[in-house]
Amino acid sequence: MAIVTLLTDSGTSDHYVAAIKARIISINQAVRIEDITHDIKPGDLAHAAFVIRAVFRDFPMQTVHLVGVDAVGNKGDALIALQLEDHFFVGCDNGLFGLISDQPHAQVVELNSLNTITTTFPERDIFAPAAVKLASGIPITSLGKQMPTFRKMIDRQIKATKKQITGSIIRVDGMGNLITNISKRVFDILSEGKNYTIAFGGEKFRRFHAQYHQAEQGECFIIFNSLGLLEIGIYKGNAAELLGLDYDGVVNIIFD
Amino acid sequence: MAIVTLLTDSGTSDHYVAAIKARIISINQAVRIEDITHDIKPGDLAHAAFVIRAVFRDFPMQTVHLVGVDAVGNKGDALIALQLEDHFFVGCDNGLFGLISDQPHAQVVELNSLNTITTTFPERDIFAPAAVKLASGIPITSLGKQMPTFRKMIDRQIKATKKQITGSIIRVDGMGNLITNISKRVFDILSEGKNYTIAFGGEKFRRFHAQYHQAEQGECFIIFNSLGLLEIGIYKGNAAELLGLDYDGVVNIIFD
Amino acid sequence: MAIVTLLTDSGTSDHYVAAIKARIISINQAVRIEDITHDIKPGDLAHAAFVIRAVFRDFPMQTVHLVGVDAVGNKGDALIALQLEDHFFVGCDNGLFGLISDQPHAQVVELNSLNTITTTFPERDIFAPAAVKLASGIPITSLGKQMPTFRKMIDRQIKATKKQITGSIIRVDGMGNLITNISKRVFDILSEGKNYTIAFGGEKFRRFHAQYHQAEQGECFIIFNSLGLLEIGIYKGNAAELLGLDYDGVVNIIFD
Repeated sequence: MAIVTLLTDSGTSDHYVAAIKARIISINQAVRIEDITHDIKPGDLAHAAFVIRAVFRDFPMQTVHLVGVDAVGNKGDALIALQLEDHFFVGCDNGLFGLISDQPHAQVVELNSLNTITTTFPERDIFAPAAVKLASGIPITSLGKQMPTFRKMIDRQIKATKKQITGSIIRVDGMGNLITNISKRVFDILSEGKNYTIAFGGEKFRRFHAQYHQAEQGECFIIFNSLGLLEIGIYKGNAAELLGLDYDGVVNIIFD
Repeated sequence: MAIVTLLTDSGTSDHYVAAIKARIISINQAVRIEDITHDIKPGDLAHAAFVIRAVFRDFPMQTVHLVGVDAVGNKGDALIALQLEDHFFVGCDNGLFGLISDQPHAQVVELNSLNTITTTFPERDIFAPAAVKLASGIPITSLGKQMPTFRKMIDRQIKATKKQITGSIIRVDGMGNLITNISKRVFDILSEGKNYTIAFGGEKFRRFHAQYHQAEQGECFIIFNSLGLLEIGIYKGNAAELLGLDYDGVVNIIFD
Repeated sequence: MAIVTLLTDSGTSDHYVAAIKARIISINQAVRIEDITHDIKPGDLAHAAFVIRAVFRDFPMQTVHLVGVDAVGNKGDALIALQLEDHFFVGCDNGLFGLISDQPHAQVVELNSLNTITTTFPERDIFAPAAVKLASGIPITSLGKQMPTFRKMIDRQIKATKKQITGSIIRVDGMGNLITNISKRVFDILSEGKNYTIAFGGEKFRRFHAQYHQAEQGECFIIFNSLGLLEIGIYKGNAAELLGLDYDGVVNIIFD
C-alpha cells in the first residue's frame, strides 16, 4: 500500500495541513496518510529532525515522508526528493535532511526543476504531488534533475575519551524527559570493565535503570531508551522543570 | 471513495471527536474520514468559516464536510445539509455557511425534520448519519424537508475606490501571519498603471514580495498568498506580536 | 474491517504516537487506526478512564482499544489484554480498566508472558503487536497466560438517599462544562413525584434544561448530557472559570 507520512510546523488550527491531505487524496485516493506531528515550533529544524529520525524506520520500506518544516527555506534552497535507507523524503533542502541518517543516500533530485511552477505553498503544490508519485512507484529520477548531494548540517556531537563522555540534551519530550545524544553503543564500548559516574545539573548517579518504574515516584531515572539513547527523567514528574535542564544542556559520564 | 471531513470546535482532549468518527465507522466502514481541524475556539464562526472556505475546494467534488462548530446554535436554528459548488456540508444553520462561498447553493434541506430525534449531541446523532448518507450517494433531498435558503451572515467587506483600498485582517494564523480580505484580483484591477503604498500599523511599503523568503529574517513580507489574499508577516518571526496587529486590524493600499 | 483505536498520554509533539502507528501498519496494513485522544495529562487515569468509557461503545463490536496511559505503570503491574462488552482493550493493568465498565469481563490475559521481551516502550513493542493480533481475529487466549482478574480502582461514587443525591464533578471538558457522576437513571428513580433543588457553588436551580440553547447566553444550563450524566455549563461561556468549580467539586440535588 502507498503510505505518505506528514511532518510539518504548520500547527493544527489552520487549513494548511488539511490542504496538503486534500491535494494528496485528490490525486490518488488509495494513498494512506499518517500524521507524524504538526506541532513542530515554526522552523525548528532540530526538533523536526529528531522526530523524523526517531520514527521513520518504524514505517514500512518505501514509505514517503513529506516534511513541511521551514518549507520555503532560505533564498536559493532547493525543493528536493531524497531516497535514503529505502525510504523517500520530500521537502526543502534547508539542512534538516542531513540530520536524519548517517547512511549515504541513494538518490536526490531537485523538484520543480522540469516544469517549474511558482507557489507560496510548496507543501501543497509541489511536495504533495511528488509524494503521491513516489508512493505510487514512479521512479524518483523522473521527478526532477539529479543533484550530486544535499545540504548537511552538523549535529552537536559527543566528546568521548577513555576518561569521559560529554554529551548534550538533544530533545526535551512532552513529558519533560531529557533525551541526550549519548548512545548505548558508545557507552558499552567505552565503559567496559570500568566504574562510572553520570553527572548533570548538580546530580550524580552511579548506575542506569532498565525501566522507568525502577525509580521511586519523584526520583530520577536514567535509562537507555527505545532509541538506544541516554534519557534522564523523573518518574511521574517533569525532569526539565524539576532539574532545571533544557535543550543543549550538558551530561557527563566520568570513568574511574 | 466516500470522504467525510470533520471541522469542529470540540478540541482534542475529550471523547467528542472520537464519538463522531465512531458513529460514522459504525454505519459505514468504507468512509474515509479526514480531520480539517478541531482547534476552533468554541463558537468562533469567523475562524471556522475562514478555514473551511480556504480548503474545501481542495478536496474532491462530492466530499461531505461535517461542521460541528456552534453545533447546537441558537434557539430556532435548523440543522441542515447543503449542496454548494458540488460539495456537501452538514451542520447548524447558525450563519457560518453563508460565509464560505459566493456561489448560489444547489440544495438545502432541514435535517431531523422527517423522523425527529432529540439529542444534545447533534454532531454524533444527526450530522454523522446524514454525512454518511451523502457520502454514500443518497440524494440530499431524501434527508429532510427542502428549505428555500439558509442564514447568510455578512462578512466584513473591503472598501475600494480609485484612490484607496481599505481592508481588514480576517485571520491571524498559527505562525502569527496576518491574512487580510484584500484579494489579488481586486488589487490588480484597481492598481493598474498606478503607484501604491501599503500601510498598516505604523508601517508603509511600496512593493509586494513574490515569496516569503524574499524578506530578510526579522523583516516584513507582504505577499498575495496561496488563497490569493494579501498576507503580511515577519520572515521567521511572529507578525501579530511584533507589529501589534490582530484580527479585524486595518490595512490600507493608497494609490497615487 | 479491523479497527484499532489509540488513547495515550504521549501528546502530539513527539515521535511516540507515530511509532505506535508505524508498528501497527508494518505488521498489517489493512488495520484502520483511529485516534481517540493523545492529550491526556501524563498518568491521569481518571481523565483517560472517563474518555474511553464515554466512547468505546460507539465503535463497532470487536474494536481493539490500545490504551497507552501510564503505560509502564508501577513495579509489578502486568501488561494485559482484556475482553469486555465485546470490545478488546490492551494496556497496563494500572487500575484504569477497572473504571470503564460495570460489566464482568470475558477474558483477561497477561501479555509478554509467553515470549518475554524487555522494552521501555511497551505501547510500540508489546501493545501494538497484540492489538493487531486481536484486530485480525486471533483468539485473546493465545496472547498470554490467562489471569483470574485485573486491578479495579474504585471510582468516586454518588451518595443517594430519599432526601438528597450528592455527586461530584468527574470531568471538566475542553469547553469548561462540568460533567458529574449523577446519572439520569438514578435521578429519575429518586425524584419521582418530588420537587428538587440542584445546588452547586453558590447557585441553586429548580429545573433541568433539555437543550444547551434553552439557557440565555451567559446563563447556566443543567442538562442530562449524551452520556446520561448531569452536566452543568454556561451557554457560550466557560462554566469552570465562571463558577469557580473544578474536578471533584460537589453537586447536590435536594428533594423536598
